[in-house]
Amino acid sequence: MRPGGAPGGLALVGLGPGAPEHRTRAAEEAVRSAAVVVGYGRYLDQCADLTGPHQELVVGRMGEEEERAAVAVRRAAAGDRVALVSTGDIGVYGMAALALRWVAELPAGRRPAVRVVPGVTAAAAGAALLGAPLARDFACLTLSDLLAPWTLVEDRLRALAGSGIALALYNPRSAGRPWQLDRARDVLLEHRAPATPVGLVTNAGRAGETVQVTALADLATGTVGMNTVVIVGASTTVVVGGWLVTDRGLVEAAP
Amino acid sequence: MRPGGAPGGLALVGLGPGAPEHRTRAAEEAVRSAAVVVGYGRYLDQCADLTGPHQELVVGRMGEEEERAAVAVRRAAAGDRVALVSTGDIGVYGMAALALRWVAELPAGRRPAVRVVPGVTAAAAGAALLGAPLARDFACLTLSDLLAPWTLVEDRLRALAGSGIALALYNPRSAGRPWQLDRARDVLLEHRAPATPVGLVTNAGRAGETVQVTALADLATGTVGMNTVVIVGASTTVVVGGWLVTDRGLVEAAP
Repeated sequence: MRPGGAPGGLALVGLGPGAPEHRTRAAEEAVRSAAVVVGYGRYLDQCADLTGPHQELVVGRMGEEEERAAVAVRRAAAGDRVALVSTGDIGVYGMAALALRWVAELPAGRRPAVRVVPGVTAAAAGAALLGAPLARDFACLTLSDLLAPWTLVEDRLRALAGSGIALALYNPRSAGRPWQLDRARDVLLEHRAPATPVGLVTNAGRAGETVQVTALADLATGTVGMNTVVIVGASTTVVVGGWLVTDRGLVEAAP
Repeated sequence: MRPGGAPGGLALVGLGPGAPEHRTRAAEEAVRSAAVVVGYGRYLDQCADLTGPHQELVVGRMGEEEERAAVAVRRAAAGDRVALVSTGDIGVYGMAALALRWVAELPAGRRPAVRVVPGVTAAAAGAALLGAPLARDFACLTLSDLLAPWTLVEDRLRALAGSGIALALYNPRSAGRPWQLDRARDVLLEHRAPATPVGLVTNAGRAGETVQVTALADLATGTVGMNTVVIVGASTTVVVGGWLVTDRGLVEAAP
């Protein structure tokens, strides 16, 4: 503990999809009250209006998530009041799991107090722009095979496609992973109707926001990138008034 | 349009799990700026600090969701600025789909402008209190069979259980549906290890908040109610330091 410093503690903070208006008050307060704010550069930019010169900013690099989480935990264990920030919900494909793992490795007496501050995840932000495609059951699935073999990702996709629920696909495509979304579409088409509505939301709540509605069979993946969430309708999802809407019941829509 | 009234429009607003600190600014602004706020009584209570005597509150009753959504749409179409509020995320088991259906039934020229304001859903709020159980793929599934035959709910549960992803079970149990969660546990045990970590979060972010961690085989359902979200760990979820944590990869935890 720093002499005279603020009481330590670690806040794991989800900043929401991008625009300040989609942050929660708890997230804002956790960032404002931290002595040390740790995050990937773009996420620190996302909360730049909440930080000031009295705070220490620790800028992480993409791909160094383990190290970033470790720094945040180490600083909190040393008595600093730390906020580790992620876009969206830090508990969903975010850094919360990594940080909690590091905390649990400390002896019980040296663990900082930890609070996870949830946020609006990309699936929810994207769904809101499309209408209400996630109004009944849905799953979030990442198409990234950086931390798992593609066969396991595809097994999950197949099981979920067969269940008929809506899907929010995270990390659908990047320069280094150009073919996974095409493959996912083909797997989905084995189980789901070609006309299944699909929504593509890029940069939800950020500059450059785009929203596109198409059918599963027509899903062209070329414009999809790391900032896109792909929402595949449930077997009961219809397009009405330009929106994707999923019924609360499970009776399938007429074909 | 009312003469001299504010421009009409319909905001479909998710208020988050309960505590004001988990509301977004967009949600707060949408409620504050509405002339008419429509919602189930408890949800209007949840945003009572945002409303005032200059606003008209339309209090709905549980079970009359269709009518409540219709009232909100009708008032917005007549030129009022309306906010329809739900707890959590209005797009997830909320009222957004119902309202959009009603809007789409209006002639195109009579449709009010609609905005869906996402919020922190119960799965995210519950997960944050448990640690990071939803850190990789997960599904939200309702156990309510009020709007669907139980056989369809069980089919989905079975497909999801087999996929090994984490599950957030909504509407797990009520006085009128006392056995569904017991049955769900038994179905899950056909596919998942008895030691699979399970978290029960009741009244997340509200008075009477409780958090409980158990194993799937030990899941006692007696204390579970309408305000509980049940989070079933993924095949890779472990309990460390008291938290439920799911790895970012798909390599299964050692048994």
